[in-house]
Amino acid sequence: MTQKEKSTIVLFSGELDKAIAAFIIANGAAAYDHEVTIFFTFWGLNALRKDEPIAVKKGFLERMFGKMMPRGANKLGLSKMNFAGMGPQMIKHVMKKHNALSLPQLIELAQEQGVKLVACTMTMDLLGLQKEELLDGIEYAGVAAYFGDASEGKVNLFI
Amino acid sequence: MTQKEKSTIVLFSGELDKAIAAFIIANGAAAYDHEVTIFFTFWGLNALRKDEPIAVKKGFLERMFGKMMPRGANKLGLSKMNFAGMGPQMIKHVMKKHNALSLPQLIELAQEQGVKLVACTMTMDLLGLQKEELLDGIEYAGVAAYFGDASEGKVNLFI
Amino acid sequence: MTQKEKSTIVLFSGELDKAIAAFIIANGAAAYDHEVTIFFTFWGLNALRKDEPIAVKKGFLERMFGKMMPRGANKLGLSKMNFAGMGPQMIKHVMKKHNALSLPQLIELAQEQGVKLVACTMTMDLLGLQKEELLDGIEYAGVAAYFGDASEGKVNLFI
Repeated sequence: MTQKEKSTIVLFSGELDKAIAAFIIANGAAAYDHEVTIFFTFWGLNALRKDEPIAVKKGFLERMFGKMMPRGANKLGLSKMNFAGMGPQMIKHVMKKHNALSLPQLIELAQEQGVKLVACTMTMDLLGLQKEELLDGIEYAGVAAYFGDASEGKVNLFI
Repeated sequence: MTQKEKSTIVLFSGELDKAIAAFIIANGAAAYDHEVTIFFTFWGLNALRKDEPIAVKKGFLERMFGKMMPRGANKLGLSKMNFAGMGPQMIKHVMKKHNALSLPQLIELAQEQGVKLVACTMTMDLLGLQKEELLDGIEYAGVAAYFGDASEGKVNLFI
Repeated sequence: MTQKEKSTIVLFSGELDKAIAAFIIANGAAAYDHEVTIFFTFWGLNALRKDEPIAVKKGFLERMFGKMMPRGANKLGLSKMNFAGMGPQMIKHVMKKHNALSLPQLIELAQEQGVKLVACTMTMDLLGLQKEELLDGIEYAGVAAYFGDASEGKVNLFI
């Protein structure tokens, strides 16, 4: 039995368009039979947040970060032409019109295809995000685990 | 005869400075005798637009996107210090002073060196860009073709 | 004796959060016993500036760039939620609280671990930055040297 080829993506950015690109590439790589890991760090973690508020105990700064950052895949802005939130609506509209999968659907597909979604524990600590606030079925690790995967990866991207 | 080594760049960003970086690396890789592909997606597609308006039939949202996005390599802004368009002029000025190639010249050089320029058909659909509006001599493909190239690539970057 | 594996990072972006991510990954890779190069280009060069003003002769535009760009690792802004400089203070505060290394400490650790810090000479020329203005102990090279390293790299990222 041959080992599957591996690929990794670091999702650092918290914008809708970049998260969509990351998941489209990840799903493409999984369809290509690669073992794929997306490592969510810094603002990228916001794509993994549940969209309802979760009651957890937090310090003041952590509560502020939690309020200021977008809560989940449906709330992300765009890296260009955000226009106070109109841009994301336009993009979502044209994606629907062209029958493209939405970001929540792309995430679901990735989980079904076995793409490993890993939240960076160090930046979770910094931003005050707790496991209860993130989607179910994801993993937790630090930079050493990421780099271990990447060092065996064929395609490694930072988005 | 040995096969050439391959390298790929995804150009996702639509800013002048990032497009210049992408083409400088791509031209460097081609000079290093790699077979290089730049895959243009989302805002990166704007670097491939012809600079005159092209008459094509479009829906309302597609026309709006077309108008709001920069038309071609000469119109791109900067990712930092854009200053309502003064930044790009400053950069172009210092590049000329230092005899650095401009972005249109870098694109031409890339085409002469055989760098494969590929427009992402999925995001062309979303943004309503049509083949007539993009530079001649480019190719069209989706994520599967990109990932096929990347999985054989030595250096794969996302810009 | 076996050759060490290599990895490279291009640091193009000039924001605190991205520079922190680049150095955390670089230090992780060095701990993994990779030979690591960070190639600083465009706004990424600002992370290498000394924090005091250095008297060097410059033309007008170069002086302007020098004044407008952040002077060193302590002055960088954030890619998200910068809030006119309050965001970086918040991030620095939580990093300290969690005993995470600051960017200047991450840079020092990288140098101790033998991470090669290379400033892109072409963009130094464009932005008018001179060797005297950058940290001691760094190297200077162009895209050809970068790509030579990257073509032998296991993990190559563009940040």
